[in-house]
Amino acid sequence: MLIVQKYGGTSVANVDRIKAVAKRVVKTAKEGHKVAVVVSAMAGETDKLINLAHQVSSAPREREMDLMLSSGERVTCALTAIAIEELGHKAMAFTGRQMGIITDDVHTKAKIEKIAGERAKKALDEGYIIVVAGFQGITEGGSDVTTLGRGGSDLSAVAIASALNADLCEIYTDVDGVYTTDPNIVPEARKLNKISYEEMLELASLGAKVLQTRSVEFAMKYEVPVVVRSSFNDNQGTLVTKEDKDMEKVVVSGVAYDKNQAKITVMGVPDKPGIAARLFKGIADAGIVVDMIVQNVSSDGKAADISFTVPRTDTKKTLKLTEGIAKELGAKGVDMKEDIAKISIVGVGMRTHSGVASQMFETLAKHSVNIIMISTSEIKVSCIIDAKYTELAVRVLHDAFGLAQGKV
Amino acid sequence: MLIVQKYGGTSVANVDRIKAVAKRVVKTAKEGHKVAVVVSAMAGETDKLINLAHQVSSAPREREMDLMLSSGERVTCALTAIAIEELGHKAMAFTGRQMGIITDDVHTKAKIEKIAGERAKKALDEGYIIVVAGFQGITEGGSDVTTLGRGGSDLSAVAIASALNADLCEIYTDVDGVYTTDPNIVPEARKLNKISYEEMLELASLGAKVLQTRSVEFAMKYEVPVVVRSSFNDNQGTLVTKEDKDMEKVVVSGVAYDKNQAKITVMGVPDKPGIAARLFKGIADAGIVVDMIVQNVSSDGKAADISFTVPRTDTKKTLKLTEGIAKELGAKGVDMKEDIAKISIVGVGMRTHSGVASQMFETLAKHSVNIIMISTSEIKVSCIIDAKYTELAVRVLHDAFGLAQGKV
Repeated sequence: MLIVQKYGGTSVANVDRIKAVAKRVVKTAKEGHKVAVVVSAMAGETDKLINLAHQVSSAPREREMDLMLSSGERVTCALTAIAIEELGHKAMAFTGRQMGIITDDVHTKAKIEKIAGERAKKALDEGYIIVVAGFQGITEGGSDVTTLGRGGSDLSAVAIASALNADLCEIYTDVDGVYTTDPNIVPEARKLNKISYEEMLELASLGAKVLQTRSVEFAMKYEVPVVVRSSFNDNQGTLVTKEDKDMEKVVVSGVAYDKNQAKITVMGVPDKPGIAARLFKGIADAGIVVDMIVQNVSSDGKAADISFTVPRTDTKKTLKLTEGIAKELGAKGVDMKEDIAKISIVGVGMRTHSGVASQMFETLAKHSVNIIMISTSEIKVSCIIDAKYTELAVRVLHDAFGLAQGKV
Repeated sequence: MLIVQKYGGTSVANVDRIKAVAKRVVKTAKEGHKVAVVVSAMAGETDKLINLAHQVSSAPREREMDLMLSSGERVTCALTAIAIEELGHKAMAFTGRQMGIITDDVHTKAKIEKIAGERAKKALDEGYIIVVAGFQGITEGGSDVTTLGRGGSDLSAVAIASALNADLCEIYTDVDGVYTTDPNIVPEARKLNKISYEEMLELASLGAKVLQTRSVEFAMKYEVPVVVRSSFNDNQGTLVTKEDKDMEKVVVSGVAYDKNQAKITVMGVPDKPGIAARLFKGIADAGIVVDMIVQNVSSDGKAADISFTVPRTDTKKTLKLTEGIAKELGAKGVDMKEDIAKISIVGVGMRTHSGVASQMFETLAKHSVNIIMISTSEIKVSCIIDAKYTELAVRVLHDAFGLAQGKV
């Protein structure tokens, strides 16, 4: 098999951890596999560099930021290759450029366009373990260095697995896999052996920080089998894969929460066509990502309240913008609430099972948790609730859907 | 004018120092000059990386070492460019690759073969201050990253100045310039306003650590005018330039010392042709650089003693090797002495003044400093003495040649 193994920042945090990674990699190679390793920067290194830049400038040029930020992964990929050689196995380090990772030129959050990878393939065929610097690429033509944004090494790994036609992409992190919910809140939370791309995508974007969202989208699109597992033990991880019949039996796979949201309500908007478009175009143009949107027409049918949520870091900016647009639209006023949380249940089984949403609402009601907003998709139900009820809601939902005892 | 300014590790050691560098660079630009900046890694950063690698492996692969070591300069060149932009001047960071610095493929001590520099020239013409990562290059074809060895950023700066046809190459460091000797030993040591390439070369290789030897050779070959000065004040530095008539008046420009040598003597070597060749070929083949060589034929003309010096780090290796060769040659034995120092006087004026060497020997004799070995060149006299007399010898020679009061 050809296996891609990605090791995150905590897995390469120091020399001893890097040596442990080298051992695991060599063990995999000795089992007869070709191995391509993708590494992040040492834990804390990227933040240290960002901090340095912000001490120098409040708005550092992004081209230069990328040049700087890409250095952390260069160090770990070289060190890891050296550690593998020390164990007596041939190894070669690859930068994003040497791996041929071509991206667009949107610095600090570039998108991968293609991966050449000829040199890497040749090295693998010659018996080298290759160690690639995650998180980075180069622009078409190769003139500049780019980075892929937060958690971008996951994306590097999945994209490299796809380009090399790997049989498996293992994402090594500091947890054992994907859990039914946050074990810090629910000690009985169970590790899932298997989860579908769609569910993982919902969980990832809902705040379960195991895998970067874009990497899951990429894996789904190119059907790359991904395993999330720990670099600190040998426990079996969670396989993220295509939905299969087996999975449909499980109605709800996990409960996720996100405390990093704020809700903004525009009250008394005249109920005319084009109003929502005007509002959300204005917000999108400012680069703010809106998550949930709910609109209620008032009983007399003449005016509506529009509520939506945005990341809490964008609250101020959004509020100012919304107040301007509300005035222009003749709305009665704008309201904001920050102490909220989004609680979600996710499961591909919802497609074929009815009554899941109502069971969620009932459970919350039984424990006196008031629902502020509701949003649903094919495989997910999300509710906005008061932030103080977050842990309670997660626990009772986890219990109500039998996640602690069930089997996948 | 087009000015290249190189800032060493202590000059970019932290955010405040980098901001100070940015100010100096922008000031130079505002005086109407085009400015290309070359930066080292933050002080201590390269050693930190070397240390990491040696914790992982006793003999790390050099290709990977270069990949890793080149990251320190990437950080400082990006940060410095960001700091310049923050002051309102256009700036662009360049890696060795982006600068087009092509080297041979001798990793960790590569030689510069050519500098393309088109992108840099274009940026300079468009009004950018360019900030180049020192110490690094790429192999022909661009597949791998190389580094230029200790102090390599000086070489980067001089080579870039030559490639860009710069009018001046300023090397900023933590001392005010080149001194007649080490001010830590002789407080009256005087800063030289001007020194010839040849003298600087002797001083650099003799242990005055202001400028890297290879950078001086390069500057001499391509006649790049170099100024050594401090980034911590506005004092005038030392101009390193072609020898001119003015300089010939000064017999001795400086006194240098080097405590990092060991002396090895092969005793009773049969006095036959080819003996020295056999000995020193063996040592050179092992990659050991021999500095001074002295041979004395014994009074009966049948046997000779050969003494030579090597860097102290190579003592053990050299001794072992020499003992083998000595046996083979039928020599009587091998002796080693480590507590020695090399004291040298340097000056282009020696070419036209006689009696300089004898004045040196007399001065040392007057202070009871025994001379163990002597070696001379056109513009230099070096003596090996007991290490414990180093400071004394430097002081009395500095005084004897009137270096404290004279004028250049």
